[in-house]
Parts: sequence; C-alpha cells; structure tokens
Amino acid sequence: MAEHKVRFLPDDITVTVPTGTLLTEAAARAGIELNQPCGGQGRCGRCAVLGIAGQVRRRSTVRLSAEALAQGWALACQTTVQGDVTVEVPPQEKIERNLTTDRTATPVQVPHGYDPARDQTIRAVSVAMSPPDMSDQIDDWTRLQMALAREADIQNPQASLGFLKEMGAVLRAGDWEVTVVLDQDAWDRPHCPPRLIDIRPGHMEDDRLWGLAIDIGTTTVTVCLVELVSGEVVAQAADYNGQIKRGEDVISRIIYASKDDGAAQMQELVVGTINRLIGAACKRAQVDPRQVVKAAIAGNSTMIHLLLGLPAASIRLVPFITGVNHAPVITAEEIGLNMHPRGTVDCLPNVASYVGADITAGVLSSGLDEVDDLTLFMDVGTNGEIVLGNREWQLSCAASAGPAFEGAGVRHGMRATRGAIEEVWISAETYEPGLRVIGGVKPKGLCGSGLLSLLAELFMAGIVDKAGNVNLDLPTARTREGERGPEYVVVWADETSIGEDIVITHVDIDNLLRAKAAIYAGYMVLAASVGVSLADVKRVLIAGNFGKYINIEKAIQIGLLPDKPWEQFDFLGNTAVRGAYLALLMRSQRQRLKEIANKLTYLELSADNSFYDAFTSALFLPHTDLYLFPSVQAAMQVQTP
Amino acid sequence: MAEHKVRFLPDDITVTVPTGTLLTEAAARAGIELNQPCGGQGRCGRCAVLGIAGQVRRRSTVRLSAEALAQGWALACQTTVQGDVTVEVPPQEKIERNLTTDRTATPVQVPHGYDPARDQTIRAVSVAMSPPDMSDQIDDWTRLQMALAREADIQNPQASLGFLKEMGAVLRAGDWEVTVVLDQDAWDRPHCPPRLIDIRPGHMEDDRLWGLAIDIGTTTVTVCLVELVSGEVVAQAADYNGQIKRGEDVISRIIYASKDDGAAQMQELVVGTINRLIGAACKRAQVDPRQVVKAAIAGNSTMIHLLLGLPAASIRLVPFITGVNHAPVITAEEIGLNMHPRGTVDCLPNVASYVGADITAGVLSSGLDEVDDLTLFMDVGTNGEIVLGNREWQLSCAASAGPAFEGAGVRHGMRATRGAIEEVWISAETYEPGLRVIGGVKPKGLCGSGLLSLLAELFMAGIVDKAGNVNLDLPTARTREGERGPEYVVVWADETSIGEDIVITHVDIDNLLRAKAAIYAGYMVLAASVGVSLADVKRVLIAGNFGKYINIEKAIQIGLLPDKPWEQFDFLGNTAVRGAYLALLMRSQRQRLKEIANKLTYLELSADNSFYDAFTSALFLPHTDLYLFPSVQAAMQVQTP
Repeated sequence: MAEHKVRFLPDDITVTVPTGTLLTEAAARAGIELNQPCGGQGRCGRCAVLGIAGQVRRRSTVRLSAEALAQGWALACQTTVQGDVTVEVPPQEKIERNLTTDRTATPVQVPHGYDPARDQTIRAVSVAMSPPDMSDQIDDWTRLQMALAREADIQNPQASLGFLKEMGAVLRAGDWEVTVVLDQDAWDRPHCPPRLIDIRPGHMEDDRLWGLAIDIGTTTVTVCLVELVSGEVVAQAADYNGQIKRGEDVISRIIYASKDDGAAQMQELVVGTINRLIGAACKRAQVDPRQVVKAAIAGNSTMIHLLLGLPAASIRLVPFITGVNHAPVITAEEIGLNMHPRGTVDCLPNVASYVGADITAGVLSSGLDEVDDLTLFMDVGTNGEIVLGNREWQLSCAASAGPAFEGAGVRHGMRATRGAIEEVWISAETYEPGLRVIGGVKPKGLCGSGLLSLLAELFMAGIVDKAGNVNLDLPTARTREGERGPEYVVVWADETSIGEDIVITHVDIDNLLRAKAAIYAGYMVLAASVGVSLADVKRVLIAGNFGKYINIEKAIQIGLLPDKPWEQFDFLGNTAVRGAYLALLMRSQRQRLKEIANKLTYLELSADNSFYDAFTSALFLPHTDLYLFPSVQAAMQVQTP
Repeated sequence: MAEHKVRFLPDDITVTVPTGTLLTEAAARAGIELNQPCGGQGRCGRCAVLGIAGQVRRRSTVRLSAEALAQGWALACQTTVQGDVTVEVPPQEKIERNLTTDRTATPVQVPHGYDPARDQTIRAVSVAMSPPDMSDQIDDWTRLQMALAREADIQNPQASLGFLKEMGAVLRAGDWEVTVVLDQDAWDRPHCPPRLIDIRPGHMEDDRLWGLAIDIGTTTVTVCLVELVSGEVVAQAADYNGQIKRGEDVISRIIYASKDDGAAQMQELVVGTINRLIGAACKRAQVDPRQVVKAAIAGNSTMIHLLLGLPAASIRLVPFITGVNHAPVITAEEIGLNMHPRGTVDCLPNVASYVGADITAGVLSSGLDEVDDLTLFMDVGTNGEIVLGNREWQLSCAASAGPAFEGAGVRHGMRATRGAIEEVWISAETYEPGLRVIGGVKPKGLCGSGLLSLLAELFMAGIVDKAGNVNLDLPTARTREGERGPEYVVVWADETSIGEDIVITHVDIDNLLRAKAAIYAGYMVLAASVGVSLADVKRVLIAGNFGKYINIEKAIQIGLLPDKPWEQFDFLGNTAVRGAYLALLMRSQRQRLKEIANKLTYLELSADNSFYDAFTSALFLPHTDLYLFPSVQAAMQVQTP
C-alpha cells in the first residue's frame, strides 16, 4: 500500500502512514493529542483540523458548516489520508486537571469493631530460619515454607516467579529472618492456599499495611489510601478520568475502545489517571507505592471492562451484555497499577451492562440491603441507575438519561468547574435571574445543578410551561426567538467570560425533560413491577457527586425526584468508593457484596412495555399526573394565583 | 560519567559507552557476538580482541602471552573502556547448529494402559449455551461457567484476563457453542479449581491435544512433541543449548548470569533454543505451536533456575543452595515459550544444587525407585550424578568430575561433532593407533568417548602406567617430551584437519584421572554410607548421551565404571526427557516424581570425610586396589606376561 507523509502544523511534525489512515491515527503517531469527546464518531466536531495542502477523503462532515468545508476544515476522526498532506491543528481545549488530595473529601468511617485479624485477608508474618550449611542444604523456598508452616501455620503458600526471584537475596539480607506479606484468600478461589505478595528482610518494625479503595467514575476517579491494620483512610485524591478526551460518556468510550488498539489506549489512560492519584495520595501520606499491597475497585461496568482491557462492545449493543460481571482477582502487574506488582487487585462485581460495581458498592455502603424500610437508591448521571428494595429483595434498572444533567448536549452546558453557574433564582415578577458561579468568577456556562435549578425556576416563574415551551410573550428581553428556537438568556454576553449570551434553548429544555423523565419513569416501572407504589418508599438515597449539589425542592419541582418530605432524602456522596473501602477491609463485606450482586435483579427498561408510557407521562413539568407532586401543585397555586 | 566511542572492526560498528564499560558489553550493544565459554571470567581466552587505537584498562591477562600483549591483544571480558577505542574482532568460532528433528531419536514408549481420562490433567470440553437476549442478559463469563458446570461438572473454573479478553468473541464466533481446554489440577495447588487455558469456537473436530516433554541439558536441549490423548511422541528435535556461548559448563553460566542482566540473557538464550526446537518439531508434525497446551521440563538445577530467571549464584557458593527445588507450575507466557501463552509449564523437581530435575526424571524413567535389586544409576558428565538405591531408599551425590570427559580442559578435547575421534585402538606391539572419526573425515580432536577409549588403550598397551605417567622409553616416536610435558601423539599433523599433531598430554591424563576418580569415589562413598558394597549392586544404569557411546570394557579398564559383567549394565540414553514425558502424561507419574524428589537423600561429597581418601585411591588406573577390578587385572596379566 502506498505511504504518504502527513505534516502537522504548527508543531511541524511529519509522520508517514499508509493510504486510508485516519488523520486522528496519524496525529496519534505524531504524538499530537486531538480531543475526541464523542469517541471518534464524527459527532462532536471537536477534532476539526484545517487542511492546507494535499489529498484527503472526508467520510462525514455533518458537524461542519458549508463555509468551514469550503475553507478546508475536516473532522480528523472522519478523514483519511490519500496522499501527502499538510494540516493545521487548532489549539486543543485542554482538559483542566483537577487533582485534589486531602484526607476527608469523602468522609469514611472505620467500620465499628473492625478487627484486622478476623476481617482482613492481607497479613504480614515475620519468621526466622536457621541458615543453610553443608549439613542442611534445603533449598531457600522449602526453608521459607517450613518456617511459615511452623511459625504461622501457613500451609502450601503460593509464590509467583517474581516472588521467588526476590526471595533468595532477601533471606540473606535479613540474615534468615524475614517478613512475608500474604493474601490469605481470594473470594473467587475458595479453598486455595494463601498467596505470597512481598518479602522484606528482618522483622517488620512498621506494622502498617497499605491498601487502596478506588472508584473509577466516567468523569472523576477517586482514590483512598487506607492503612489496613487500623482501617484509617490517610489520604484521598481525585481527578478527571484521563479517558475523557477519548469520549465523554461510556458509549463514546466503548466505540473508541472497539477500534484497533483503542482498548489498550483506554486502559492506559485510566491506569495513568489512577497511578497519578496513587502517587499523589502516597506522597501526601509519605508511603512508598510499592508498600501498597491490595486494591478494591468500583466503577460502572464499562469502566471496569476498560480498566481490565476486556472487550466492551457488547455492552452497548442489543441485548446489552457484559463480558464479565465478577472479574477474577488479579495482581497489580497484570494491569500496571502503581503499587506492589504482586498486590491483590479486586474489582467489585457488576450486575448488568448499565448497573455496575459502582451501584453494588453503593448498595453495600448505603445499607439498603440491611434495612426493613422500602428504600430507593439512585445515582443520577448519564445513566440514572436506580435500586429499589430492602433486606428482602432488591430490584435495579438503568434509565438512559443521557448526559444533559452532566452539561453535555446542552448549548451552554459544562462540567462543574470554575466558571460554571451552579444555582439560579428567577424573579417571578421581573424574570431576572440571580446566580451562583463556581469560583465566584464571570460565568462560562451551566453545570448540572445549575441546569436543574434553572429549569425549576423557569417553570415556577412561569417562563416555561409544563410542556417545556418558552413563553415569548412575557415583558422581558430575556425570552426571545434565538437561532435554535425559543430561548431564555441567563447571562448577557458582557457579563460572561465567553463573550456571548449564555442561554438555555428549547432544545436544551427538551433534553433535560427527557433526562428527568427517563429517571422518573425508572422509579415508576421498578415500583410497579413489584406491585408497590412510590408512596410506600420510606427513604430516598442519592449517591454520586451530582447528588451532593442537588437542591431537593427544585429537583422535585421539575419531577426528577419523587415528591416526599425532605427528611426522607439522604445525600450519600461517593457511595462507590465507600463500598470499595468496605470490600477492601473486610471479607464479610466482600461476601455481602457478592450476595448483593447475585441478588440484585436487573430490569431492562428498554424491554419493558410499561416504560414508554411512564416516560411520556414524565416528559412534563413536573409530570402529567400532578397528584404525584402535591407539594409542587401547592407551590404553583401560591405563585400563580 | 564520561562517554566514549568504541569502534569494532571489521564490521565497523561504533557504539557510545561510559568509562569502565567492559568490551564484551560494548560488543553486545554493537550486536557483535563474542564467544565467552568461561562465562566472562577471563579464563578461556576465547574473547580476545586486538586493540588498534585508544585507551583501555586490562584487568587480567593471564590467558595472553607476552607477545600477544605486546601486539595489543586483550581479553574483551576483562578489559574496560577508558577513552575512544578501536578494536579488531577476530573471526569467532561459530557454535555449529546441530538441529535434528525426527520421531525416534530417543525411543519413547507410551506407558502401558495409558488412559487420558484418568491420567491426563489436560482436558477439552465442548459446551453449548443458549444465546443471550433481552430477557436473559447474564454476562458471558457467568454463562460459560454455568454451561461448564451443567454439561461437564466443572466447578468454579479459573480464568486469566487473557482468557476473558478472548472469550466474548469466541462465544459469538462459535454461535454459543465452544470448546474449552483446561488443566484440571496442578500438583502444587491441591484443591484448587481447574484453570482454563484456551477457548475455541464450536465443537472441536480434531480431538488431539498437544504437549511437550523437554530436557534442557547443559550442552543439548531436547524437545518431544507429544499428542496427549494417545500419548504418542510425534516429533523430536534437539540442538545445542544457546547458552553455550556464555559458558560451557554450569559454573561459567552461573557466573555470567550473576552479572547485570546476565540472568535475563541466559533465560533468553535457552528460551530461544527451546522455541526454535518447538517450532521445528511442530513444523514436522504440522501442528500450530499455539495448540500446545502443556509442557514438562527436566534439566539440572542450574538449567531450571536459568530457564525461570531465578538467581543461581548460591548454587555455586558454599554451602551450595538452590533457590527453588520444586518450582511452582507456571504458564508459558511467564517465560515466553513458543506455545499457547496460557499453557501449563511444569518444571520437574530438583533435589540439590548438583542433583537436579534431570536426575529425578532419570530415576523415574529408569524405574530404580520400583525395583528390589540394589541399583546404581549414573549420568556421566561435568557432574557425575550418581544414585544408589531401590524401592526402599535412594541416595544420591554429585561428583565434581570436571568437564574433561566432555572434551574441555583437555588440549585437543572437543564436542562429539564431525571431526571428533570417538574411538581409539592401540597396538601393544607397535604402539600405533587405529581411529574412528565422527563423519569419517580428517580428525580435529578427541571427544569424551574418544578420550576414554584412548586412555584405556594407552594403559592396556603399557604406554602409560597405573599412575598415568607416559613412558618415554618405548620404541616409538609417538611418545615424547612435549611443550607441556610428556605426551602421546594420536594423529600426526598432516593427517589432521587442524595442521598440528593431535596429542594427549600428561596434564590431560591427569585431568581425566581426576574426573574418573571423582565418579568412582562417589560410588564408594554412597555405598559405604549405607553399609553396602559395590559388589552388592545388581544393575548399573547409565544415563545421558555420553553413556550411549561408552565402551563398557574400556570404561572399566580405566576405573570409571565398577568391574561387573556387561549384562548388568544398561545404557538408557536420555532418561531426563523420558521422565519429563511421563510427568507430562500421567498425574500418577508426577506424584511419583514428587515422592522421588522428597525421598532422594543427597550426600554432599565435599562435606564427607571419607571422600578424599576414596578419591585419591581412585586416582590410579584402574584403582589402587586392584581387587576391585579383577577383570582388568586378568586382562593385564594376559597382555604383560
């Protein structure tokens, strides 16, 4: 096949590629990072480059205007090289690093009565041996095994070649007195002997043992460094998932991972993020990452598959099948985690394609599986995962809410970073808004909680009706017919940092309505399928970061949350990392988690006939059936006399 | 540190290295192979190079003459770079590749009554599943496990990430009908569930399963390709061990492996040899190496350590300790063998530093552990490993014979390749020799069997006396005072292919005497330590390639073998590969091997007070005590009336 030169400006890097290579691949070879938040599907337009010279073939150009096309712009993920080419790469939007480290970001309590001797599978054992001599020539490995059996009743321990390679030198360095760190059992290998992880010379003076509880969110990765003997969390670190630049949502990432070496790239990206966070947490606590011997990892099913390098394509294709729900326990070196290479890595179990280990971990840490009261647990995000149940039974579903509440698919949506409007109040008289902006700076856009709050205020102020239509007849310049239809101006251009009006359009509102309707329909279908009513629900548990910033009253007003007194709601924060923490510490919790995963019945909404009806009924503000929202009805009557 | 340019002629390759780099290391970086049969100890002189320009530091020059030093010769393994240097590399002696492939090099019998269902741990299982749909969204891995449990009663199978990565595509390619190859148990993981190796779409039409029996000799590596269902050996391949160029004997190799990345190099070299042999055997049998799912490997303790990349230094240092006698069962990918990456690799157990898995395998295949008769088993090589025993007990030792019988440390010694004199007859009247040369060409030197035969003939013809002294007073020009003392000319220069007289010197004879004395002393000490006499031995089993070419009568005449009627001797050939074959096929044999390794008492000769006396008594031809060699005494009386 013919080879062509592709020259990238302004960096002036040239690579040689065969005919038909995508410009994104050529850029990757040149070491140039092109953002592809849609995963290379040609849908987001963010990888556009300017062709200066040469022959290319453009597969899809739907995201480019006629003018841009005429100027020579092309979507790199949709454009193949057909001859020598020179392209100009515009400055790429940097994904702001948001590394945070502290001790208490997610409050984590050491479980009452935690007893490492009973609960923890990791154990350190110091043993002494008589040194070999000409009358005792037993091999090092047998000598160590005999000492472990004699002094700690450890039978038939398993050692990898890596362990055995280090063993001889350590035995001699410790003058035949060593400390061995071992994992006594793994949930997926019942009755198997303990596995040796580390060998250190001498008796261990510092009797601390280190582990990690990790939550891989689609957006944010959180790492807690845990001292396994005391159970204390000594440092936490969080940052954006490095996979974001290859897709903002799980679907885009699965698509990207299904291409060529996409799976390996995705694995490398998330492992890179985790490793940086481990490094930051360990640095803060002054712990050598090699001392970390165990990790428990939560995340949604896609995140777990991509972490392990498992094919994820079937997750997004009918009938939506995961490759592996209960992944085997592995060692850190198998995926390259920045900890002891032979340390145990335990991925928490998934339930289905869209109810993953983050939800089983969430159920575990929320205690839903241990209470008598009927409880609703939800994690509002791209997929609104919902669990309904109690100690007797648990039922789950995933509502394909779409990314609207994460700020995607919305004209001025953005992540909850500096410059994002996080709360809005609108006067029902002047229709003027009041804002709270993250960082107190000029606003750039609206994050999820800002959108939710804005929608509720627009509705309660009578600016949008219950169908989500913007009323253009009001005495305010803020409602108007915009390029994309009716819209409301949240901030005038000169008060923003982006130099254009920040608006919410009819289309945005539609997307938000669909998102909240999908979630509300999820509650309804779950409840109906077991013959209970939402009125029977005694507690509503809201997990996830987004949950932390939700205003309950406003979320009820738009019909995202069921209409219940505020004292029935609990915001739990990152329940996934807390569940991982429990699984890290206690075998009984790991066992409980396994039971949750096995017991948690999954209801496929897209196969449920009642879902569509429930969804369309919920496409209104707050709902077609106002009797479901008595408090909103009451408030509306107050506001619109 | 300063960097210098090292230019190698005649290839004209230049590399840059820091001050103090050995020329051998610089050469390795330049991709130039220098032979180092002594392992880089500066003892063999084979890595000499000619310094043309520049500054070097010579550590040791003992192998170089004053003249050579004056000319600028230096031992590359002992010379460090101190400035920019140009060196000339003389043509390196190539290690002739000697790849052989056939079916029957080592005759191997399928064990009587071999029943793969009972004996073999490898098993192929075909299962069918109902495909997933929207009402049955179980993950692939659970679906497969359920099918294995239901259709083949396989509980809780273990899968690696590699297996799980392949699984989804194969399940779909086979339309939810697959064949799984698994290893039902490993000797070192009792009670652990079976381990999945391979997954193939559909029902397997070809119901053959492939395995390897491998013997890693210090000199020669042998690979047998075995069909595991029938037990048939379908192809064999053998070749020199690629490590030879980094040391001819185990001690040199241990020394080399103890340097920098020497262990990794040694591992790579032997794995390279094995992989080439697997490729050749598979090609002959038209089998894809990826279809090979199990290997059993024998070899001496050093070979096993170097194969696994385990530190071997303690093997050669007092008190001579192996790192690992029973290595854990590993997968092929852990050491890079050319077979299925998840295939089982089982290294047979060692007993001590100098009684390795080749000997336990030898005892197994010889059946010494199952007979009532007192039996002597030996493998004559650099280390004469000796086992004395029967079904009740087994005792072993290693006599440090040195490499004389392998042709090393002897002026005109060489390996048993083309041009080697393999047998000699000498007229007791004319003192003229008759020769047999491998390949029927002009001779180059003497291999082990040639040396043995020569020594016996020299003694029986009265050319050397019982102390090994050459009689210079005989009426023949063949005995003379040479440069290195008294010598006998075996071939005159013009009849050789090397252009110089092929001789055996007094020093050579001394080395041979020491070698045979060490071995004979070994028998004596073993027997004495359990209160039996060599006369009580009913069978003598001689293993190894060298054994195949030994003339018993002559070996008795020099006192290498005990004086017994020829019908009590058996030449067994490669018992190591045959033992590996048995361990590959049958779990009962693997269990037996483990028992042999545990039971085989090792006697450390260097710590035994009686050894030195036995050794000095055996330094004569055939022995100080002629009553031990009645047949030789009788023959001598016939020849010297």
